[in-house]
Amino acid sequence: MAKNAFYAQSGGVTSVINASACGVIETARANAGKIGTVYAGRNGIIGALTEDLIDTSKESDADIAALRHTPAGAFGSCRYKMKSLEDNRREYERLIEVFKAHDIGYFFYNGGGDSADTCHKVSQISESLGFPIQAIHVPKTVDNDLPITDNCPGFGSVAKYIAVSTREASFDVNSMALTSTKVFVLEVMGRHAGWIAAAGGLAADADNDIPVIIIFPEVPFEQEKFLAAVKAKVDSHGYCTVVVSEGAHWQDGTFLADQGTRDAFGHAQLGGAAPVVANMVKDAHGYKFHWAVADYLQRAARHLASKTDVDQAYALGKAGVEMALAGENAIMPTVVRTSDAPYAWEIGKAPLADVANVEKMMPKEFISEDGFGITEACRTYLLPLIGGEDYPPYKDGMPVFVTLKNVAVDKKLPEFKM
Amino acid sequence: MAKNAFYAQSGGVTSVINASACGVIETARANAGKIGTVYAGRNGIIGALTEDLIDTSKESDADIAALRHTPAGAFGSCRYKMKSLEDNRREYERLIEVFKAHDIGYFFYNGGGDSADTCHKVSQISESLGFPIQAIHVPKTVDNDLPITDNCPGFGSVAKYIAVSTREASFDVNSMALTSTKVFVLEVMGRHAGWIAAAGGLAADADNDIPVIIIFPEVPFEQEKFLAAVKAKVDSHGYCTVVVSEGAHWQDGTFLADQGTRDAFGHAQLGGAAPVVANMVKDAHGYKFHWAVADYLQRAARHLASKTDVDQAYALGKAGVEMALAGENAIMPTVVRTSDAPYAWEIGKAPLADVANVEKMMPKEFISEDGFGITEACRTYLLPLIGGEDYPPYKDGMPVFVTLKNVAVDKKLPEFKM
Repeated sequence: MAKNAFYAQSGGVTSVINASACGVIETARANAGKIGTVYAGRNGIIGALTEDLIDTSKESDADIAALRHTPAGAFGSCRYKMKSLEDNRREYERLIEVFKAHDIGYFFYNGGGDSADTCHKVSQISESLGFPIQAIHVPKTVDNDLPITDNCPGFGSVAKYIAVSTREASFDVNSMALTSTKVFVLEVMGRHAGWIAAAGGLAADADNDIPVIIIFPEVPFEQEKFLAAVKAKVDSHGYCTVVVSEGAHWQDGTFLADQGTRDAFGHAQLGGAAPVVANMVKDAHGYKFHWAVADYLQRAARHLASKTDVDQAYALGKAGVEMALAGENAIMPTVVRTSDAPYAWEIGKAPLADVANVEKMMPKEFISEDGFGITEACRTYLLPLIGGEDYPPYKDGMPVFVTLKNVAVDKKLPEFKM
Repeated sequence: MAKNAFYAQSGGVTSVINASACGVIETARANAGKIGTVYAGRNGIIGALTEDLIDTSKESDADIAALRHTPAGAFGSCRYKMKSLEDNRREYERLIEVFKAHDIGYFFYNGGGDSADTCHKVSQISESLGFPIQAIHVPKTVDNDLPITDNCPGFGSVAKYIAVSTREASFDVNSMALTSTKVFVLEVMGRHAGWIAAAGGLAADADNDIPVIIIFPEVPFEQEKFLAAVKAKVDSHGYCTVVVSEGAHWQDGTFLADQGTRDAFGHAQLGGAAPVVANMVKDAHGYKFHWAVADYLQRAARHLASKTDVDQAYALGKAGVEMALAGENAIMPTVVRTSDAPYAWEIGKAPLADVANVEKMMPKEFISEDGFGITEACRTYLLPLIGGEDYPPYKDGMPVFVTLKNVAVDKKLPEFKM
């Protein structure tokens, strides 16, 4: 009898994580004799721990297909990092119990670095407990910080959104700069790595002479140097666009966004890096400014997803199931780049032991010498990842996203206190 | 000999104002025997005052056609409100001088309320000075506050961007709410009128049960009532999305964004309404929050323009030229809605005397009784305006926008001190 599968979404969601879910479920359905029902965890791994499973077989083929163009996590995700096996053996044992109770032999975990680690541990404990679970990690993270794989699904679409938005806003500012805004600041995600900020650099190219300054989390902020760079751009182009990472920080590690200001009640005044940078420019040069904080808009923007990203997200979910059926365990399917231009890629795989707890940072050679821009090497890396458009269907002017029924599976085990 | 035309873009640019420019120039080219060269003002009306004219005949047909999908102001715009005729006769007389020097008989002014007023005055003074100028105002404003016309080009695309972004971000928050963000706050434009904020209400519909709370500038902010409404949404849906207008204000008129906080140097701490509202919710209920400020991204977002908006922007530019050729003066072509569903519209016209200095506010019956949502009447009004998609062409993953040559016309007059 074919074993069932468990699928869960982990951590911050993206505009294409459901495309991976689609790849997993459609591929399982296409192999109905070899793999049973795909159960999804409601709200990620918490659904497994609490035995709150969703029966995806209750969803129509059309609704599963619609996952491909629906952003966010259709089954719910969670921020819940399982502790180490030593500190928290109880939770890992509970997972195995739940898998046993529902005859689950495959564990597909769709997430970033932490979930790769959890996935790896599940595979290890299943062996030691004598209940075989094939654990496959399907990569996902807008932070693009997983090792080995060419890139991480979710990142390409955020990069496209930031690149396009930076170009559009720059056209706007350019046309108004004589009498109005001269400096526009856009704050983007990426607390530890500047991959997303780097995408702002794609706004400019041979046909678009756009003055973009990027503040990377990799480069400790030097105020005087930055202010001089802004002035040089305004002098040469009439305006300047600044893309600042939320993780931009001073030499001592303090975030730019953390100003230590207090409101009337003495509460810490939370702001973003963008208004801080914008006010800094105003104080120094008197330029009129505007600022935006893209926040969730960037990672939810399915309306502007990269086709490459959607294709890869789906392909990695599909490959995960195929690898499981081929007997693989404790691995992550990866994207292997075989050519930059034209972009070509194929599916590879990495042992989870090599993935867990390794963060891929931006190479130094991707940041220009002055610290405020991207190099040609970076452009060559990034450009294919934003390639192609993959628009969702629209009805009455609005994108049509699916909301699944998410029917619960009957529980078989006693309650588990988390 | 056919008279030349002058065209200028005025005030804050939009993602479709160039579509109006395209309509003006293409229609003028199609009537080459009856209308001469279209000169554009570099940086709007300032280009007329300084005799800094752009010869649009130097642009290829392909480049002019590309204006239809290029955001912002291709000739430059400006924030420059001409004073009243009494206070500033000199500037109006200078305009006429420049028009005379370049044999200009048509004045197409593409802007909002202020420019309608200027346009009207130019028509009046041309009469009194005995140099005939037909002055036509082509409407444009994301604020949607011009009277008589069904809507204003620029607004529909911003509305679509806000509606789509609100839906996408809500899907994101919904899928994470159990362990992470429960309240997402999106700040949108519209200092005086809540038209743009209202568009956030379109995120929810019969197929998408999304808990949206809107903070309108039309409704003085009541903190306790707002906090109770947020709690009710989080209790019922697990999360809540707040769309707050930058013009949201307290009973006494103070903007929510104005907190009177100071940084370490005693400078006013400029923030947005979004972080203020988000922190308020956190303080009262302890919910984890995220916030975004869309700022220029919303009005520059040509990648998500409404087809209706693009079509109308073009049609109004075209109609402006046709009306001028038919001998009209001191008028604004308008959109006349003839049916809600299916949406049908035709071109009408309004005398500038009826347009200038009249602001169209949101009708009271468009805001729900609790003050935090939109009514069915509002939905019926808004939905057609975001209808249809009109994607720009892409190359290598990025939208292809045109940058014109903008060749200057030789000056014939002495310099004018502004």
